[in-house]
Amino acid sequence: DERSAELLQQLKGKESVTKDGKKVQLYANIGSVSDMVSVFANDAEGIGLFRSEFLYLEKEDYPTEEELFQAYKSVAEMMAGKKVIIRTLDIGADKQVEYFHMEKEENPAMGYRAIRLCLDRPAVFKTQLRAIFRASVFGNVSVMYPMIISVDEVRKIKELVEEVKKELRAEDIAYKDIEQGIMIETPAAALISDLLASEVDFFSVGTNDLTQYTLAIDRQNAKLDAHYDAHHPAVLRMLRMVVENGHKGGCWVGICGELGADISLTEEFLRMGVDELSVSPSRVLSVRKEIRRSDLSVPKTDKNA
Amino acid sequence: DERSAELLQQLKGKESVTKDGKKVQLYANIGSVSDMVSVFANDAEGIGLFRSEFLYLEKEDYPTEEELFQAYKSVAEMMAGKKVIIRTLDIGADKQVEYFHMEKEENPAMGYRAIRLCLDRPAVFKTQLRAIFRASVFGNVSVMYPMIISVDEVRKIKELVEEVKKELRAEDIAYKDIEQGIMIETPAAALISDLLASEVDFFSVGTNDLTQYTLAIDRQNAKLDAHYDAHHPAVLRMLRMVVENGHKGGCWVGICGELGADISLTEEFLRMGVDELSVSPSRVLSVRKEIRRSDLSVPKTDKNA
Ligand SMILES: [Mg+2]
Ligand SMILES: [Mg+2]
Repeated sequence: DERSAELLQQLKGKESVTKDGKKVQLYANIGSVSDMVSVFANDAEGIGLFRSEFLYLEKEDYPTEEELFQAYKSVAEMMAGKKVIIRTLDIGADKQVEYFHMEKEENPAMGYRAIRLCLDRPAVFKTQLRAIFRASVFGNVSVMYPMIISVDEVRKIKELVEEVKKELRAEDIAYKDIEQGIMIETPAAALISDLLASEVDFFSVGTNDLTQYTLAIDRQNAKLDAHYDAHHPAVLRMLRMVVENGHKGGCWVGICGELGADISLTEEFLRMGVDELSVSPSRVLSVRKEIRRSDLSVPKTDKNA
Repeated sequence: DERSAELLQQLKGKESVTKDGKKVQLYANIGSVSDMVSVFANDAEGIGLFRSEFLYLEKEDYPTEEELFQAYKSVAEMMAGKKVIIRTLDIGADKQVEYFHMEKEENPAMGYRAIRLCLDRPAVFKTQLRAIFRASVFGNVSVMYPMIISVDEVRKIKELVEEVKKELRAEDIAYKDIEQGIMIETPAAALISDLLASEVDFFSVGTNDLTQYTLAIDRQNAKLDAHYDAHHPAVLRMLRMVVENGHKGGCWVGICGELGADISLTEEFLRMGVDELSVSPSRVLSVRKEIRRSDLSVPKTDKNA
C-alpha cells in the first residue's frame, strides 16, 4: 500500500547495515541499459548482475565490439565508481537467436548454452571480453561467467582473458585488471566450490538455476509448481557450503537469484555470511528494510515479536 | 578377446569378495523378464534394479495388476531367494506412452515423471504396489522409488504402501513387509540423504541421472559429450556423502548407474563403503574380477604393479 511504499522511500540514501553493524552490499540485477532508471529510483548500491544477452537478442547479427563496449561503458559511467558486474553471454536454453545457428535440443535447460558455447566459439567470446575490459577504465567493472561446472573451464576462460589483455596492450588500449567471478548455479559448482574459490575473486549464487538442477525440476514447467520448493534444504545447505568455501578461498560471496530478494531468508543469509545480495531494482528497498531490522548479535531474533 | 572371456567364465560361482575379505553384493540391472537369461549366464547374485517400465511401454493401455504381478512373481521365483529390487514406474522424460496423456514438455528430463506422476495418480501407483507386494511372498523382493527429492514424498509413498497392505490384509492376500528403498539420483536427494536415511531401508545411487543434473548436462545430448565428465569430483563427493549418511541412518547403500560398472572406480567405491553394485548382466564378471583383485587393507594399492 501507499503508506509502506512511502516508508520504503525513506530508506533511500540509508545504509544496508544490520542493527549490529554488519554491512551488506545491496545491488540490483539489470537486463539492459534502460533498466538503469529503476536502479537509480530504488537507490541500488551497485549492479550485481548485468545480464548481457539483450544486445544479442535484439539484433539480427552479432553485435560489434563497439556496440557492446558502448553499452558497458555507459552503465559503468552512470554508476560512477559503484560496482558493475557484467555477466558474459548466457545464450541458449530459452534464449535463442537465429544467427547462432543452434540445433533444437531435447532438454535445452541442460543443453549447449552459456560458457559451453562461448568456450567453443572463442571469437564471439573474445569480442565480448574485449568490450568488457575496454569499458573497465570507465568505472568499477567486474566480469562474471555463467554455468560453470569445472576448474578446467575457469582456467580456459582465464587463458582467453590473458590473450585479450595481451592484444589490448599491443594495441595500446587501456584496461584494468578487474575482478573475475563465477556464477554458482550448478550443483557441480557448489560441490567443488572449494576448488573453484582459488581460481576466482568472487562467487555469485544463481539460485534459480541451482534450484532447478538440484531438484531436477524445470522451473518454467507449471505442471511441477507443487513439487518446486525454493526453500529446499538441499539448496540452503549448498548455499552455506558455497559461502564457507568461498570465504576460505578468499572470495566474497553473493546471491543474484530470486531467492536473494526473499525477505523471509534475509537474516538467514546474513547469518551464513553472505556478503552481497543482488535483486530486482524494485526489491532493493524492501531488502534494505529487512537488513536494517536484522540483528546478528542475538542468537536468533524473532523479528515479528 | 577369447582368452580373457574364458578367464571371466572361471569367476562364475566364485564370491564377490576382496582379498581382505570384504563381501560386496554384486547384482544385475534388468529391463524385462527376458533379461533373466543373461542374469543367469553371468552369475549375478541378485537383481539390484528391475526397471518396471517395459510392461507399460509395450502395451496400449495400463497393464493390469495381474499382468504386473505375474512378471514380478516369475522373476522373484527364478531368483529363488536371491534379492530382487523392483523399481516403481519411471515413465515420462524419454519414455512416453500414449495412454498416460502427458503434455509435451520443454525439458522432459527435468519434467513430470516417475514418482511425481505416481503420486499424482495414486490409482495407477497403487496397482503397481499391490502387484509388487503380492509378488513378495514368492521370493526375496524389495521395492525402490525413483526421482526422490524430499522427505515429504517418501512419507506420502509410505502412506500409500500402508493403504495397499491394509487392503491386501482385508482381502486375505499374503504379502511380506519388504525392504523399501529410494534411488538417489537427484542432487537434492544426495544433499539431504541424512534426512532420507531415517525414512527407508536402503539407497541405490543412480549415477546417470545424478551426474546429468549435477553437471546440468543432458547425457543424451551428443553436442555436450566433451563437457560431460562421468568422474566429476562433485559426483564422487556426493556418492561419499550418501554412503556416510546412509550408513549412519542404518541404510545399506548401492550404486545402480553405469558408474557402478566402471572398474577404474571399483576399489574407490569399496573404500567409500559401498555395499552393493548393480550392473548390466554382461558386466557382472568383470566387476567381480576387479573386486577380487582389490585389497582394502593396504592404504592404496596399485593393482597394475
Ligand atoms: Mg542461470
Ligand atoms: Mg534415473
